[in-house]
Amino acid sequence: MEDLYPSRKNNQPEIMKRKDPVIHTDRSKDDQAPLSKEQLDSYERNGFLQIENFFSEDEVSELQKGIFELQDDSKDVTSDKVIREPQSDEIRSIFHVHNDDEYFKKVAYDQRILDIVNHLLGSDVYIHQSRINYKPGFTGKEFDWHSDFETWHVEDGMPRMRAVSLSIALSDNYTFNGPLMLIPGSQNYYVSCVGETPDDNYKESLKKQKLGVPDQESLRWLAEQGGGISVPTGKAGSITLFESNTMHGSNGNITPYSRNNLFMVYNSVENQLVKPFSAGKERPEFIAVREGAPKFSNS
Amino acid sequence: MEDLYPSRKNNQPEIMKRKDPVIHTDRSKDDQAPLSKEQLDSYERNGFLQIENFFSEDEVSELQKGIFELQDDSKDVTSDKVIREPQSDEIRSIFHVHNDDEYFKKVAYDQRILDIVNHLLGSDVYIHQSRINYKPGFTGKEFDWHSDFETWHVEDGMPRMRAVSLSIALSDNYTFNGPLMLIPGSQNYYVSCVGETPDDNYKESLKKQKLGVPDQESLRWLAEQGGGISVPTGKAGSITLFESNTMHGSNGNITPYSRNNLFMVYNSVENQLVKPFSAGKERPEFIAVREGAPKFSNS
Repeated sequence: MEDLYPSRKNNQPEIMKRKDPVIHTDRSKDDQAPLSKEQLDSYERNGFLQIENFFSEDEVSELQKGIFELQDDSKDVTSDKVIREPQSDEIRSIFHVHNDDEYFKKVAYDQRILDIVNHLLGSDVYIHQSRINYKPGFTGKEFDWHSDFETWHVEDGMPRMRAVSLSIALSDNYTFNGPLMLIPGSQNYYVSCVGETPDDNYKESLKKQKLGVPDQESLRWLAEQGGGISVPTGKAGSITLFESNTMHGSNGNITPYSRNNLFMVYNSVENQLVKPFSAGKERPEFIAVREGAPKFSNS
Repeated sequence: MEDLYPSRKNNQPEIMKRKDPVIHTDRSKDDQAPLSKEQLDSYERNGFLQIENFFSEDEVSELQKGIFELQDDSKDVTSDKVIREPQSDEIRSIFHVHNDDEYFKKVAYDQRILDIVNHLLGSDVYIHQSRINYKPGFTGKEFDWHSDFETWHVEDGMPRMRAVSLSIALSDNYTFNGPLMLIPGSQNYYVSCVGETPDDNYKESLKKQKLGVPDQESLRWLAEQGGGISVPTGKAGSITLFESNTMHGSNGNITPYSRNNLFMVYNSVENQLVKPFSAGKERPEFIAVREGAPKFSNS
């Protein structure tokens, strides 16, 4: 298959134009969408969309209970799916929860969410990756800027930009507790990064990403193009949808306030993984679903 | 001299009440102040005060020119006064600029500033410390929570809480480029920290403070008491005055936007340094002025 988005193949970074639509259902069908025209415009222009109070207070309580019970149950678990802080033993992420946990499976296939992502991706979808992120107070470390798509393309063989990430805020997001930051408009450009990907890179990169991190000049250029940096804040229960190629990252968190979220990636069934485009070995199933991906449709 | 604020002497952290007023001129004399009653109330209640557009655009341009010229001139200088980033050679701070540089001397003794700090401290003042902070984009590291007074008391022998810090913003402060964060109300409590101070601790602590960092439980308690965390943002040219004991810190900065400021500490001439309260060797003059501190009065 042709590599439309080459990266980690050259010694020089390069910025290319996006070759895929941002919204994969034709805009003439806006009236069939479970989002308003303004919401669709905003997603298409900025590469992300926040919806406040998407989940009710009761749902949020249940979700919070769910993530802490799972964290507690995983305390002594040794598994590649349980990622810990680089300098401590605190659990930073638990992967593949849409598959391993009956409760989170239900959340992942919530029909309200499926209706939205089906529309954005213009097809049936499946879950490419899921995880709970626990960003503890005081010691939460930064995540460097990256496009998820760059990694999914290079390391997992995702052919096109036809996936969407969903972050469900499970603690209040302030400006100061290391919230998600996005560069509006960055979904329209692909930053081809330098460097080669070693086998099993994911074991390090889930703690601290070193490859697929764009150069500073490209980042500055993207921020200037897109009008800076956006920081969606809001109460627990709000959701942020962001396009697979939207550049994002987060600062560390020295405040006492933790930042937790449930994160799921929906990919179009017409965009299933092929061989990785620049890395040898395929990453494990819990990071990049290949086998038996179930399809889920509009309601 | 009696140690009213013991710290780094025990194995247990402790929270004590402040034993000094926050504003040292009697509030019956508010009408003589160069600040409004609302501003004085806010400073007394929160432990800090931000004033936007304190410096004009022309003054800001000149100040910005000044700090970058000095940074450039200091590039190859080896001096204890020039502090570099832990993981790179970039200049993070330049100390003692009110003394070593004719231009910054004039800024430090700007009569508008002196009138304010004279009133807050209720006496003539002198400059205890000055520095320019350069927080570069992409790689700026966090500063952990601390009370400046704790260090000045323990390591420099400042007897009472009768000093005020002034930060002049020389780049726009956003919520996302590692701005100063403060805990409102924290000036009213003194967190006695654990640990002993080794000689020459400052050589490390100016890069990353490890002693005099309050414990997490005390920080959480302070934030709950004071109503969370405040992040004054604003354009270059705004100033933030904060009381010597107000708990503050800042997150790292992965954004392309640098954050620079000029920082000066004014101490009351009635509060001059004595022997350090818990550390043996005195820190050098450029960190803690002892000799020939000139006095500056109201206009």
